[in-house]
Amino acid sequence: MAESNRVLDTAALRSMHPADLAKVFEECDPSLHSELLSRLNEEKRADLLVHLDPMDRQQLLEQTSVREIAELIGELDSDDAADVLGDLEEDTVVRVLEVREQDEPEEAEDLRELLKYPKDTAGGLMQVEVASIRRSATSTEAIQALRAWQDDVENMHFIFVVDDDERFIGTVRMARLALAKPETPIAGLMEAKFVEVRPDVDQEEVARVFAKYDIISLAVTDADSRLLGRILVDDVVEVMEEEADEDAYRMVGSDAEELLYGDRPFRIGLIRLPWLVVNLVGGFCTGLLLWIFQATLEQTIALVAFVPVITAMGGNVGSQSAMIVIRGFATGRIDPAAVGVIVFREGSIGLFMGTLCGGIIGAASVIWLGDPTLGLVVGVAMFAAMSVATAIGALAPVVFRRLGVDPAIAAGPFVTTANDITGILIYMLTATALLS
Amino acid sequence: MAESNRVLDTAALRSMHPADLAKVFEECDPSLHSELLSRLNEEKRADLLVHLDPMDRQQLLEQTSVREIAELIGELDSDDAADVLGDLEEDTVVRVLEVREQDEPEEAEDLRELLKYPKDTAGGLMQVEVASIRRSATSTEAIQALRAWQDDVENMHFIFVVDDDERFIGTVRMARLALAKPETPIAGLMEAKFVEVRPDVDQEEVARVFAKYDIISLAVTDADSRLLGRILVDDVVEVMEEEADEDAYRMVGSDAEELLYGDRPFRIGLIRLPWLVVNLVGGFCTGLLLWIFQATLEQTIALVAFVPVITAMGGNVGSQSAMIVIRGFATGRIDPAAVGVIVFREGSIGLFMGTLCGGIIGAASVIWLGDPTLGLVVGVAMFAAMSVATAIGALAPVVFRRLGVDPAIAAGPFVTTANDITGILIYMLTATALLS
Repeated sequence: MAESNRVLDTAALRSMHPADLAKVFEECDPSLHSELLSRLNEEKRADLLVHLDPMDRQQLLEQTSVREIAELIGELDSDDAADVLGDLEEDTVVRVLEVREQDEPEEAEDLRELLKYPKDTAGGLMQVEVASIRRSATSTEAIQALRAWQDDVENMHFIFVVDDDERFIGTVRMARLALAKPETPIAGLMEAKFVEVRPDVDQEEVARVFAKYDIISLAVTDADSRLLGRILVDDVVEVMEEEADEDAYRMVGSDAEELLYGDRPFRIGLIRLPWLVVNLVGGFCTGLLLWIFQATLEQTIALVAFVPVITAMGGNVGSQSAMIVIRGFATGRIDPAAVGVIVFREGSIGLFMGTLCGGIIGAASVIWLGDPTLGLVVGVAMFAAMSVATAIGALAPVVFRRLGVDPAIAAGPFVTTANDITGILIYMLTATALLS
Repeated sequence: MAESNRVLDTAALRSMHPADLAKVFEECDPSLHSELLSRLNEEKRADLLVHLDPMDRQQLLEQTSVREIAELIGELDSDDAADVLGDLEEDTVVRVLEVREQDEPEEAEDLRELLKYPKDTAGGLMQVEVASIRRSATSTEAIQALRAWQDDVENMHFIFVVDDDERFIGTVRMARLALAKPETPIAGLMEAKFVEVRPDVDQEEVARVFAKYDIISLAVTDADSRLLGRILVDDVVEVMEEEADEDAYRMVGSDAEELLYGDRPFRIGLIRLPWLVVNLVGGFCTGLLLWIFQATLEQTIALVAFVPVITAMGGNVGSQSAMIVIRGFATGRIDPAAVGVIVFREGSIGLFMGTLCGGIIGAASVIWLGDPTLGLVVGVAMFAAMSVATAIGALAPVVFRRLGVDPAIAAGPFVTTANDITGILIYMLTATALLS
C-alpha cells in the first residue's frame, strides 16, 4: 500500500519529467501500471512511451489497442511517432495509420513517408515539423509564423530560411529574432548554411556532422536542397549511445539486440553463440595444427608450455590494432581512402612490440629451461606471431568495411581466432625448422 | 603553387566554418601554416584553435607566443579557453593569465576558477557566461539584458531564471521570449527546473543526464542551487565521443593518449606494452601450469590439441560478459547497487553456452580421436572453463569499479589472462582426474 500510494500520487506524477516518469513506471510493480497510466493525460502517456526502454515499451504496446496507439501517436512529434511505429508489427502499423488517417490525413501521409527511411539514416532520425520562412520575409512575419506553430515551438531554436524556390539557404537563431526590431528583413538576421545532409546518410555520419560543427539542429534536404525535415541534437545523443553499444556488443561477437531480452539467458545465449561457434571451429583448426605437429611436440614436450602465451599475445595485439582502426572509422579520424598509412603504422608498432616481447620470452625461456635453441624458437615465433597479428588486426576492419560488413566485428572472436591459427602455425613451423 | 593558391584563398577561408578551416589547416603543407593564419582575423584564429585535433593544436601552441595565446584566449568562451589552457604547460598558463589579467581581470579570475575543476567533470565542461534573470523581471527587461550580452548571445537558447536569493529555479526558451508580449512577467514564461548538476559530477554522468532528459543546455550549480555556469550539448557530444574512445582503447589494454602521438610507433608501442607485459606474465603462468602437468600431457599427447580451443572459448565468453557489464555501467543500465542480478544472469548464460559448446567439442573429439574418455575430459573441461569465465568476466568490472579503477580495462588483457590460467587449470585437473 505504501508503495502504491507513493507511486500513484497524481500531482507528483503530472509534474514529473517524462524521463523520470518512465523510471518510476519501469521500477514499480507491473500490477500498478494500468492504474498509473490512468492518472496521466494523453500527452503525458505519449511522452512516457517515448522515454521507456525498448523492452518495457514493447510490453506496454502489446497491451494497448490500435485506437489508443493511434491517439498516442497523434500527440508525438513525427520522429518519435515513427520510432514508436517502427517497433510495431507491420500489420499493426497499417491499422494504426488507417485510424490516424481519419483524423489527420496529412500527418498519416508524413508518417508513411518517414517510415520508408531505414531507422539508422538521417531520414529515419528526422522530424518533418520544421519552422521555415522565405528569405524575403521580415522578423514580424517570422514571429507571426512562429505563433501559428505554437504547439511545435517548444523544440525550435532556429528558423530555417529558404529562397523563392524553397531551397534551404540558412538559419536564424531564436535569440536574434527575439532581439530584432519589427520589420527587420530576415536576410539580415540569417546566417548562411554551412552544412545539410541527404536522408540516406548513415546515422553515424550524422552524429559526426553534429560533433564536427558543434550544432544543435541539422537540416535534411533532397538533391535540390529542398527541406525534408530536421534532426535535433537530442536524438543524436541517443544515436551516439546506441552506436557505442552496438559497436561494443559486436566487438565481443554479440549484438545489442540482446538488450531486448532482459533476463532471458537462453535467448541471449543464442545471440552470442554464432560467433562462438566460429571460434569453436577455429579452435578445432588450431588443434588440428598441433595434431599435425605431434611428432615435434612429443620430441620436445616443453614446446607445449609456450602455446598459450603465443596465442594470447597474438590475440591481444591483434585486438588492439583492430580496435584502433574501428574507432578511427567510427569517429572519422581514419580516411577509408588512405588506410595504407594506418596499416603500415600498426605494422611498425607490431614489429616493435614483437621484438621486445619476443626478446623477453626468448630470454626467459632460456633461463627457465636452459635450452638456447628452444629459447630461440620461442622468441622468433613470438616475434613473428605478434607482427603478423597486428597486420591482420589492422587489415580485418578495412576488409570488412569494403565488404559492407560492420568493421566492429573485426575486434572480436574473428581476429582472435585468425590469430590463434596463424600464431600456432608460425610457432610449429619455427620449431620444426630450428629443432630438426 | 596550385595548392597554395587554393589553400590561401582569403575570401574562401574567411567564410568557412571553423571546423572546415581546421580540416584545411591539418591537411595542407605545414609550410603554409603561418601564411594561412596571417589571413585570418583573431576571432577566426581562435575558433580554428578550438577545432584542431589535439596533436595539431599542441604543435601550433608550441609555436605561439604567450602574448598571442592570451589574445586568442580572449576571443573564446570560457569553457573553450579553459580547454586550450588545460593543454599547456603549467608555467605557460600562469604567464598567459598574467597577460589576460591586465586587460580583463575578471575574466582571468573566472578562468583560474574553471581550471581548478578536473577536465572530466561538470565544472571542467561548463562555461561561466550564463544569461540569467530574476523571476520578478519582465520579458522586456529580459530582451534588454540579452542585448547587453550581444557578444555571447550566439549560443544562448535559454535564459536561466533565478529567485531573489540568486537560486536557480527554471528556464525560459528563446522562442517563448520572442513570442511574448512586452512586459510579460518572466514567471509566466518560465518552465520549472527539473535537473541541475554540481560541478564535481563526472562527465560520463553529465552525458547521461543530457541523454535522459533530451536537453540542450544544463545548469551547473553549487550546494545552494546558485548558478556557477552552464554546459551546452555540443560539448557533451564531444565528451561522448571521447568516452567511447577512452573505453575502447582501455578495453584492449591501451589508452586514448596514443591519439596524441600520431605516427610515432615507438611512443605508441610503449603505451600498449604495460598490459601486454601483464599478459606475458600471465601466459608464463599458463605455461608453468602445462609444465606441471607434463606427465599427463606426455601420456596422452592428444590433450595438447585442445589447449588452444579451451583457452580461446573461455577468453571469448569472459570478454562478452565483461563488455556487457562495462556498457551497462557506462550507460547507467546497470545499477551498481544491484550487481548480483547481472552476475547471476551472466552466470546462467555461461552455463547454457558452456553446456552447448562443451557438448559439441566433446562429441567432436570422440568422433575425431575415437577415445570416449578423452571426449569426456574435453567436454567437461570446456563446460567448466566457460562457466567460470563468464562469472570472472561479469565480476571483474564490478570489482574494478569498487576499487575505483575504470571498469573498461576488465574487457581487455586482464580477463583474457585470468581466464587462460583458470581454463588450463580446469582442463589439466579434469584430465588428471579422469585419465588416471
